[in-house]
Parts: sequence; structure tokens; C-alpha cells
Amino acid sequence: MKVGIIGATGYGGIELYRILSNHPNVTRCNLYTSSDEGKPYVSVYPHLHDLCSDQLHPLEPERVKEENEVIFLATPSGVSANLTPKLIDDRVKIIDLSGDLRLKEAGQYEKWYKKTPAAEHVLNDAVYGLSEINRSKIKEAQIIANPGCYPTATLLGLAPIVQNQLVKPKTIIVDAKSGVSGAGRKPSIGTSFVELQDNLKIYKVHEHQHIPEIEQQLHEWDKEVQEITFSTHLIPMTRGIMATIYVELLEDWENKRLLDLYKQFYKDKPFVRVRDEGVFPSTKDVYGSNYCDIGLKFDPRTNRLTIVSVIDNLMKGAAGQAVQNFNIMFGIEETTALRFIPVYP
Amino acid sequence: MKVGIIGATGYGGIELYRILSNHPNVTRCNLYTSSDEGKPYVSVYPHLHDLCSDQLHPLEPERVKEENEVIFLATPSGVSANLTPKLIDDRVKIIDLSGDLRLKEAGQYEKWYKKTPAAEHVLNDAVYGLSEINRSKIKEAQIIANPGCYPTATLLGLAPIVQNQLVKPKTIIVDAKSGVSGAGRKPSIGTSFVELQDNLKIYKVHEHQHIPEIEQQLHEWDKEVQEITFSTHLIPMTRGIMATIYVELLEDWENKRLLDLYKQFYKDKPFVRVRDEGVFPSTKDVYGSNYCDIGLKFDPRTNRLTIVSVIDNLMKGAAGQAVQNFNIMFGIEETTALRFIPVYP
Amino acid sequence: MKVGIIGATGYGGIELYRILSNHPNVTRCNLYTSSDEGKPYVSVYPHLHDLCSDQLHPLEPERVKEENEVIFLATPSGVSANLTPKLIDDRVKIIDLSGDLRLKEAGQYEKWYKKTPAAEHVLNDAVYGLSEINRSKIKEAQIIANPGCYPTATLLGLAPIVQNQLVKPKTIIVDAKSGVSGAGRKPSIGTSFVELQDNLKIYKVHEHQHIPEIEQQLHEWDKEVQEITFSTHLIPMTRGIMATIYVELLEDWENKRLLDLYKQFYKDKPFVRVRDEGVFPSTKDVYGSNYCDIGLKFDPRTNRLTIVSVIDNLMKGAAGQAVQNFNIMFGIEETTALRFIPVYP
Amino acid sequence: MKVGIIGATGYGGIELYRILSNHPNVTRCNLYTSSDEGKPYVSVYPHLHDLCSDQLHPLEPERVKEENEVIFLATPSGVSANLTPKLIDDRVKIIDLSGDLRLKEAGQYEKWYKKTPAAEHVLNDAVYGLSEINRSKIKEAQIIANPGCYPTATLLGLAPIVQNQLVKPKTIIVDAKSGVSGAGRKPSIGTSFVELQDNLKIYKVHEHQHIPEIEQQLHEWDKEVQEITFSTHLIPMTRGIMATIYVELLEDWENKRLLDLYKQFYKDKPFVRVRDEGVFPSTKDVYGSNYCDIGLKFDPRTNRLTIVSVIDNLMKGAAGQAVQNFNIMFGIEETTALRFIPVYP
Repeated sequence: MKVGIIGATGYGGIELYRILSNHPNVTRCNLYTSSDEGKPYVSVYPHLHDLCSDQLHPLEPERVKEENEVIFLATPSGVSANLTPKLIDDRVKIIDLSGDLRLKEAGQYEKWYKKTPAAEHVLNDAVYGLSEINRSKIKEAQIIANPGCYPTATLLGLAPIVQNQLVKPKTIIVDAKSGVSGAGRKPSIGTSFVELQDNLKIYKVHEHQHIPEIEQQLHEWDKEVQEITFSTHLIPMTRGIMATIYVELLEDWENKRLLDLYKQFYKDKPFVRVRDEGVFPSTKDVYGSNYCDIGLKFDPRTNRLTIVSVIDNLMKGAAGQAVQNFNIMFGIEETTALRFIPVYP
Repeated sequence: MKVGIIGATGYGGIELYRILSNHPNVTRCNLYTSSDEGKPYVSVYPHLHDLCSDQLHPLEPERVKEENEVIFLATPSGVSANLTPKLIDDRVKIIDLSGDLRLKEAGQYEKWYKKTPAAEHVLNDAVYGLSEINRSKIKEAQIIANPGCYPTATLLGLAPIVQNQLVKPKTIIVDAKSGVSGAGRKPSIGTSFVELQDNLKIYKVHEHQHIPEIEQQLHEWDKEVQEITFSTHLIPMTRGIMATIYVELLEDWENKRLLDLYKQFYKDKPFVRVRDEGVFPSTKDVYGSNYCDIGLKFDPRTNRLTIVSVIDNLMKGAAGQAVQNFNIMFGIEETTALRFIPVYP
Repeated sequence: MKVGIIGATGYGGIELYRILSNHPNVTRCNLYTSSDEGKPYVSVYPHLHDLCSDQLHPLEPERVKEENEVIFLATPSGVSANLTPKLIDDRVKIIDLSGDLRLKEAGQYEKWYKKTPAAEHVLNDAVYGLSEINRSKIKEAQIIANPGCYPTATLLGLAPIVQNQLVKPKTIIVDAKSGVSGAGRKPSIGTSFVELQDNLKIYKVHEHQHIPEIEQQLHEWDKEVQEITFSTHLIPMTRGIMATIYVELLEDWENKRLLDLYKQFYKDKPFVRVRDEGVFPSTKDVYGSNYCDIGLKFDPRTNRLTIVSVIDNLMKGAAGQAVQNFNIMFGIEETTALRFIPVYP
Repeated sequence: MKVGIIGATGYGGIELYRILSNHPNVTRCNLYTSSDEGKPYVSVYPHLHDLCSDQLHPLEPERVKEENEVIFLATPSGVSANLTPKLIDDRVKIIDLSGDLRLKEAGQYEKWYKKTPAAEHVLNDAVYGLSEINRSKIKEAQIIANPGCYPTATLLGLAPIVQNQLVKPKTIIVDAKSGVSGAGRKPSIGTSFVELQDNLKIYKVHEHQHIPEIEQQLHEWDKEVQEITFSTHLIPMTRGIMATIYVELLEDWENKRLLDLYKQFYKDKPFVRVRDEGVFPSTKDVYGSNYCDIGLKFDPRTNRLTIVSVIDNLMKGAAGQAVQNFNIMFGIEETTALRFIPVYP
């Protein structure tokens, strides 16, 4: 199969390349960019020296459609809303890693992203690619809206209790923390080494564009669940997301029973690993891998449950899940090219 | 004045030395240890080369009392419970940086610290040294229980609304994050560079020994406030604590009115800096300094208030506040020796 | 094939496991330790949750010999000198990652390691496993002395010019820098997060035990080359070694001609990547991979050549090269299980 | 005294402000910028909240001259060559932190900086501000060319042996390492967090613009010394420079005698601290302070001397030394406002 990566120069793009260039069903990886057209890929990413002789091609939709059977869009928000319609074609499938196709209501996109939303028919066709939960729809989809990094960690952490309607509505609070690669490759003072090293920042308080994405999915699972409190922190590390989730349950649950519920829920999902009682995952436990690790503990003092969900934001939070969806869409074994043991230390 | 630092080889000890050796009212700094007796201090901390020719003395209570007018205990928990009674004397004042004298109920100490508590009369005499709030009691005190790092950030973040009984009880959730120096200097796999670099950990979930300290003080301010949810994360940085606090209020407040309340509350407190609307502090904004910076934002979508409070855990969270209390106790201008501009970048 | 890893709880051990558990010729990985016998491996390395159900076995030589066809020793120096004789057997091959079997003269080992050397017959049998250079001997070897991390980077950086006798003797200076994982997993103040973060240290000046290893090999290549100046620095990062090498040549060479020499020399060596003119590698270019990247530049102002050689200390500097040697020894394609694209960013 | 800081928004500027706002002889600090005119300084550096209400003024030379008695230029190279002539006035003294006025030969500046050099009369008037060595000239100077960060560490490390003509010419090799704040505040991919974290880079090999500055000064001290080999590495830390210097001496020296020479040489220089035998400084030993720490060791195996010299690049390598020079120029005690104990940890 021939696959195209649009936005190959970003961190999502290079992570897609790392996985796909090692994928047994991929015969050719075409690279597209709107910033470094004509350059060899290795000039942007020197760690590919001797491993990649490909050039970066300009982003011409007709050509992209012709050259590929599946197209990954690893572009900043605002690009694929506009680009996707030009790429739609019976012969190609599209996996969009940006936030442009995730919100079903165009008005929500406008409100949170402050940009022009995609056309309604595109939004309708796009299937939300939370692999573990939407497998059957993903299988049939032509367009995938690949979930955001924060939503992936948060939703996988909440799915078992929200799908089972166990949660007291209005009590969900998510304190999320991310490594800096989530902010992309474009340089800015806010993401420069000196400003972040030995520093901890909160940002976009109550305003992060991943909030409506999380709420949309939770609400689909349990109509009672509506607004959540969600905050995001920048951690001085490269990769990794941790969502620390606080929630009240409708009735009392013991730890063990909750863990059993989670383990049962994720039994056949090879990339979600539920930890044993008393053990919580750290972000480095999933470094460079497609796993989502979950730990939890009920606090009888406060009747509140704390859930910790960690992923590698570039893998399960972006490129890894995109390839997982690619596998599902094409009937390839789901873990193909994704069976990395995390890089530790 | 002659001051003694017990536990001089730890991070609290060296930070006390950094401040006190520059304090105009301090004529002599005596250093005590139970681990490196007889060694020159500079052999433990080479950055003091040419700046300190003092030796580390053994921890002999009688001698310590004789040699000093005030004694700082910068020791691990479990030490000062035992040591303080031997140091009590009309001629000396004691400032204990450990958690041993903070909990008024001995049973609480036993439960959370799993150690033998201090004698009741010592606990009764010890004044909780949250400088901004307890000034008048601190002035008269002979023994200070210097607050913990997490409690300092959390309590200063909550004081204005809890003292004014504005908070809906049972809704306080504190997601706290700390740099690694808070874990002390004793080596362990869990605090080694390789295990923490590019990693994010949650620890002691629902079990951190600072929980009862925070609850005790909140409850004193507002009898309705009891258990809180509190979690602690280890951030790959050296210094700094951020407490992200989520709380519901009894009635609706606008952002601006809340900020006015906070600014009014901290008007004459030079070390608490309330940020303007829409601005949140980062931990590096207080690096190496005694400031506590606070930002907040009410979310009308969820009717929940998010408060962010940051300190340098070794300064306002330990040595800095201890010296601030020392100043208050001896009628010295409160900011003496503490007027550092934060080291940035 | 059944392989054994002795010292599985260290960083060399876990990196061997990461590679070997994915090696198509390895059917079983047995784990041995002298510190956590009987525990599940996942209790030491939680990132293996769901991926490894094996236990750590005690280090009983007879049993180890019986259970494996090849044994990797990833133990601290001083262990394999003693242990190897007990493991020698016609049916097993041994790959020792420690420094114990590298120095041919026992007296040199005593002098630099301050420990008892291995028996002479063991030292005689051990083949120095610098894969790119010693392929033919490695193929026949029963015991491999796997090169040190610093020597690997340094020797690969110097081989083309020293083997061709181009170097002015006595002019070789190597300024080496390493990430902290090279210091092993045993906790110490010197390798704790707080002491190393935002810090840069030089250590073991003129005394590093890798000096005689490098000199021994250089001298074998060019009898004129004897003592070198070599220094080692600890960089606040987890993985990676950079050797910055300064050397004078016997005659003037142009950059381009030197680069051609290097590219020719490493033409059929897939894990050594010589950079183009004007480009120097960074350590992250080889993160998590088995590559050694080399850049160089001749300075006509000083008639001195600067060579930069980088590796991942846990991969090409330890576990990766060990598996490369394993492949060579057993006639398996040399790059098997080692074709990782570096993890970037 | 009224002082002006031009380029107040850069890292040199804010470090000058940190020192000067605490300087007993400074009554007023005026801030100038060409990028954020009219903004409050605190909007650029929020850690100054409550501590600074000053605005950033546009860079109008006439006004700057009128408002200040001394002007610090903390601007990128290329600015002060042009600006200094407009600021020269009998009533003001100028301290230039950039590289524009350091090289006496305009042609050298053009060659290494690829920019238009300052006018000859300005270059002639500018005194090289290596405080420890040029005290008497600095005292009389109207214009100071404040030394670069790398040259300060390197020259202080070499001064005792080069001034005493002990060095074998052509043998000086300096392997220098710097924290990222040395690259300034302007964002770029090369200085972004994700590209540098857990990474080690060499840059500007044989081409760094500090090379001629070092050579000019060494040559002034010893006419035999000419070209040196000098390389620069970017370390994933915020502050700190280490120069590891390799050199051969004209005759054999014992360690102890060399250390005595250094200690004697720097006897009355409070900011240079020569370490004892066997002890080498780390960069964090001088964090946030104006010290230059030096360790050294002669290697009888290779007859080569290794010298290690560390500074905080923003302090002794920029703002700290600038204030030291300011003190000397105005007859103020040299250590005024600079007596910080380094911030450790």
C-alpha cells in the first residue's frame, strides 16, 4: 500500500514516518509539506541520515490523491477543514490527526478554535477514531477524525465508568499535564528551552479546544454528563501526557471491584493496560509506545475516585493511534507495526 | 544574634544557610548534623568554597542550646518530635521545618506519618507558622511549626475564600505538583536522575502526610470544611510547587470581584502576589525567592473556580518562610534578607 | 534460541530485554539477578506490564549454563571476572558487557579498575567485540568482551585514520560527554536528579577506566599511538554519548578527502553513518538506536582535525552492540532486531 | 546614580535588572528596547509582578544620554557598533555587553561576525573589561567592551600560565560547553525545548566568533601564543559554561606547584575561586552568582594539563561582570550587589 503523510515536517509527521516506514503492509511513504517543498526529508530530520532518501513534495491535492491509497493529515488546526474536501475520493481513505473534523457541531468548532469549520457533509462522514471504543465504525469509515492527545488519555480513563452510567454528572474534573512536543514544532518564546526548563506552567485555563471534544464523547456515552472542568499544564519533558481525573460515583464502589470493571472492559484491547491495585503509571512507562496505562483508587474519606491515565502524546495521542486506525480500516492485525516495548529508561 | 541550623547537610539546611549568612541581624550561623560530624561544610557543598570555613558539629542538645538564640530544625520527620523537648529553654526559640509539630492531634500524626508523635505539651506550645495569616501568634511564640511546602501553597491559595466562608464544603480538590528537591537529599532509585528525567509521576495517592495539615487549618478557618481531595505529582524540575485548586463557591462570583477580594486580603502581605485577570503564575516566576504567586479564574460553564498557587518549595515552602517567621518573632522587619528578585531565567 | 540475561535489573539488562524479546531468532529470554531473586520482572520495570510475565531467577551458574545457548552478562565491573569461568562450556557462548574481559594485560585491569582481574586464559579467549572492525574474529568467538560505551564512540571515530596510520602520535585528545544512564541504576547522591539537573560535571579526570581500553585498541591499529588524553563529563540527559576528538595528522588533508576516506571505510557497516561536509551529529539523532554517527572538520588555521562521534550509550554503547555481536556469532543477519529508526523527538 | 539598560527584554537585560535594582548606588534603572516600546516591563517578565512598575522606553539615543550616567548595552551583535557613537558623551560611561567593541582589528570583526565593524576611534577607546586582569584600565575607561561568556571562562582559566609564558604555543585546545540561555531569547527551532531536551549538540565548529577574542587576549599576554582550537557545545541546561582546557607546558610542573601559582595569581580577586587538589567545579557551583571556579590537574602520562573553568554565563559571563566593571569604573567596592551565594540546589 502507498500512504501519504501531509505535514511531514511536524512532530506528528515524523512519528508517523517512524512507524509507517517499518509497517509490513506499507510499500511506499509519500511526504508532503507546505513549508519545505523540494528539500530532502533528511535535511529537516538529520536522524534519518542513510535511512530515507525521499524528498518533501508540495501539497497538491490532485497529485496526493493519485499517489496514495490512504492519506494522513498531520497538520495544524485550520488546514484540513479546507483541505479534506479536495482529497475525498472513492479510492483513498483519510485519517486526519488535527482537531478540524472531531466536533460534530460546526458552531462548537468556531467557538473553541476561532476558525472556519469544515463543511457539514465532511463532519458527518468523519468517524471519531478512538480505536478501542469505535472499532466497528472505524472499520467502515472513509474519513477518520483521529482523537486529540488529551481526549485520548481522558476518555480511555473514563470510558468504563461513563459508558456504564456510574458517574455523578457535573463532578468530573480533569487535571491534565503534557510534555512540550504536544505544542508542535513551530518556534515560540513560550516553547523555548530556557523558558520551560525547570518550570511548570498552566495554560488556556477553561479555554482549551479539547474540552468540547471530550464533552461530546462523554455525553454520547451518558446523556447526563455535560460540562467538565478541564485544565492543562506544560511539563518540562518532551513526550507524555498524564490525565489525573477526579470524579464522584453514583454509589459506593470498592477499589477491587472498580479495577475488575476496568480490566474486564479493556480485556481485548491490547493497547490499554490497567494497573493492579495500589500501582499508578508514570508517563515514561509508555515512552515511544502506543500504550495507554491506567491506575485508579477510590478514596473512602472523600467518596471520590482518582483515575490516572497516561499516554505518549505523539503515539497513542497522535501517530500511533492513527496507524492503529489505519490497521483497523484495512483489516490488518490491529497491533501491526505498533508492538514496541516502551523505551525505558 | 547567633542561630543554629540542625540538619545543615539537607536541602532545607543549605537554603537556610544561603539566607541567614546574608542576614544583617545574624552574627553567627552554627551548623549541626548527625551524618557528617566534623567535616567542613564546604566538603558537603562545594559551591561554598571560599565563602564558608565552618565545620559541621555533632548534634548535642545541651551544646546547641548554649550556642544559639534561635534554632532551626531542618530534619526529616520523626527527628524533632524527639529532639525538641531537649532543646526547649527560656533563652532559645525553635523553628521546626519538619512535619512533627504541625498536627495538633497526636493520633493524626501517628495515622499519617506512621511514627511516634511529639509530647502533647510540645504540640500545644507550637504555633503554626503560616506567616501571612498567623503573624500575631508567631510574634509571641517560642516554638514554630513551620508549614509544609504543599500546605503553604494550598492554604495561601484558599485562605481568602475559606476564611470568608465562601466555599461549598466537600468540593475542594487540590492537584499539587512539586519539583524533586522536595523529596530531600537522601539518594533513592525513585529520585535518581534517570528515573525522573522526561517522566511524570503521581505518588502517595490519597495518602500524603500533608493532607491532615491542610485540613486542620481549613477547618479552623471554616468549620464546614472537612475532608479534601489532594494528590501530589513529581515534576522533572529542581524547585517549585504548583497547587491547582478546584472549588465550588456557595454563590456566584465574578472573576473581577474574586480578584479584588484576593488583592484586598493580601494587601499588606509583601510575599503574596495576586496576578491580574487572565494571568496565571508559573513556578519559575518565584524561583529562588520567597514569593507565593496566585492566579484564579471562575468558570461560568461549570460554576467552578480554578485557583493556581505557586511557590519555591525550598523558600516560601521551607527555609524562606522559616526566616520570615524568625523576623516576625524577633521584631525584625519581615522582609529582611528575603528581598530577592526571583532568578529568571 | 534460548538466551540468558545476567544482571537483568540494571539499565543494560532492560535494554537487552527490549531488543531480544523482539528478536526473531530468540525463543526464550531467561532473566537472572543477584538482587531481586524471585520477583516478577515487571515489579522492577512496570513499563513491562502485560508484556512480560517472567520472574527473576537467582544467579546459579550451573542452571544458567543449562538453560541457555548464549549468556549476556550485564553486570557491574568485578562480577564477570569471577563468574565467567563458571559459565564457560562448549554449549554456550558468552557476551560480557562489563569491562572485566576487555584489557588483555591483567595488570592494567588492576591498575585502572582497582579490582582482581579475570584469569589469563579467560582474557586470552575473550574477543574484543567492536562489531564493525572485528567481525571475523567475533564470528569464531566463544567469549565476547563487549566494548565500553566511551571506547565504542571514540574508536569508531578514530578507526579510519588510525588504522591508516595518518595520525601524529601523542596528539589525540578526547573530550567525552555522557548521559546519566551510563552511571547505572544504583542510587547515589552524585546521580540524583536534583544534583544533576541544570548542572554539568567533569569526573574521573585522567583516571577513567576506559582509557586503557581505548589505548590498547589504538595501539593495536598503529604501534606509534600510545597515551591519549581523555576526559569525561556528565550531561543532564538520560541517554547519549558524544566524543569530541581533537587530533593532528601527519600530513595536510582536505575535508572532502577525509570524509571520502571515512565513507569508504564504513561503506558496508550499516550502523555507522558518516555525515556530509559541514554537518555534525547530535546525540538525539541516535536516541534509542544502534547507530554511531560521525562528523568531522579539518581546521586549516590550527592544522587540527575535530571529529565528533555520537552513540546511544545503552544501545551501540552496550546492549545494541551486544546483540549485533550475537547476530554475527550465530550467522544471523547483522542488523536483525536492531533496525530501529531513532526515536525523535 | 541613574543607569540605563538598552535591550532590557533579553536575558542579559533582565539579569542586569536583577542585580542593579538591588545595587545601593543605583537610584534609578531606565529600561530601553527596540521591540516592546511602551509596554510595562512586567508584561515581558511576569516574575517582576509587584516588584517593578517601569515601562520599556524606545531607544532614542539623545534621551538615553540625558537620562543616565552609565549605559549598559545588552543588545545582539551588530547593534552597538552603530549605536555607541551616538551615545558617546562626556557625562556618560558605556558598558557594552555585545561582541561589537571587543576586537581591536575591524577586519577580524568583519571576518568572524560577518557584519560592519564599529568605527576605529570607538574600538580604540573601548577597554576590554576582563575585570580581574584589567582593573586599572577599566578604572579610567569611558567605554567598556564587556568580555564574552566563553572568553571569560577560558581566559580566567588560562591567565596564570599564559601571562607567565609557561605554555607551549599551538597546544591550547578548549572544549567549551554552554547552557542554552547563552543563545538569547529570540525563538528558533534550534533552541526550542523539544529539540534540546535530552540532546547534546556541537555547533559553529571552528567558526565561533569568540575565537578571535580569546586569541587576541592570549596573544597580548604571550606573543608566542596564536591560534587555538576552540569548540562549543549546547548543553540541555539553562545557565552555566564549562571550558575544559587542554594544554602542554614548556616544562614539567607538579600539580601542587601549579595550584599554588593559580591561588597566588587570584589571591585578591574575590570572584575567582581556585579549587583544591583533586577537586573540580561543576557549573551549578556558581549558579546565579558572579564566581568563576577553576580546577586543574597535570597528567604525567601525557604531559598535558587539564584545566576546568566554570561560570554562570548570564552573571560572570555577562551581567555580573558588567556590574563588576561598573563598580570598578565608579570607585565603588568591587563586590557591591554581587555577593550572592550561588543558588544550590
